[in-house]
Amino acid sequence: MHRVSLAEKFALISEHWSPKIVGELNGQHVKLAKCLGEFVWHRHDDTDDLFLVLSGRLVIEMRERSVALGPGELFVVPRGVEHRPVAREEVRMLVVERSGTPNTGDAATAAPRREI
Amino acid sequence: MHRVSLAEKFALISEHWSPKIVGELNGQHVKLAKCLGEFVWHRHDDTDDLFLVLSGRLVIEMRERSVALGPGELFVVPRGVEHRPVAREEVRMLVVERSGTPNTGDAATAAPRREI
Repeated sequence: MHRVSLAEKFALISEHWSPKIVGELNGQHVKLAKCLGEFVWHRHDDTDDLFLVLSGRLVIEMRERSVALGPGELFVVPRGVEHRPVAREEVRMLVVERSGTPNTGDAATAAPRREI
Repeated sequence: MHRVSLAEKFALISEHWSPKIVGELNGQHVKLAKCLGEFVWHRHDDTDDLFLVLSGRLVIEMRERSVALGPGELFVVPRGVEHRPVAREEVRMLVVERSGTPNTGDAATAAPRREI
């Protein structure tokens, strides 16, 4: 139960596509991530995924459509929907999803789960 | 399943202390609120409450301590913890909490639940 400064937390993140846990509520994790380039296609069968872009521009590709998000824009990818985030410039984003969600949709290939 | 611009949604909010629903994930609502002045002391026994301040300065008073949040700072009030948000200047904030949570902790006095 402590105040979290997003700027201070982002200063601790260097790797891209490696979300770090900064908070928890109701069985959900709040994570911060820096992103650059194309992520892998994946889906989460047991969680919806909220993306809130804080800086940069993120395209969330889905099989049927894409959504482009700039700073101050959010989107929820519903569970089960295949998606691929793409960042042509560095993006900083806040993500909310069920605790324990592997970022690739698969524990074998996921980034390690870490709190900062 | 649509993109949400926080700025566009805030332009639709005039009342203070009347959170509007802008998204949903995993049984949680994502809400936006403008705040000014002192809210009532209350607690939620069945949900943690995430506050992310987007502009202005919000003090979350609790019985044992207070936390002051500026833009880009977040705090989770755990379920059952009595709190009173206070905004000496207008605050814009994003809140995540379990769907159906009355903002005063009591359905009888809560602001109407509305999606925008």
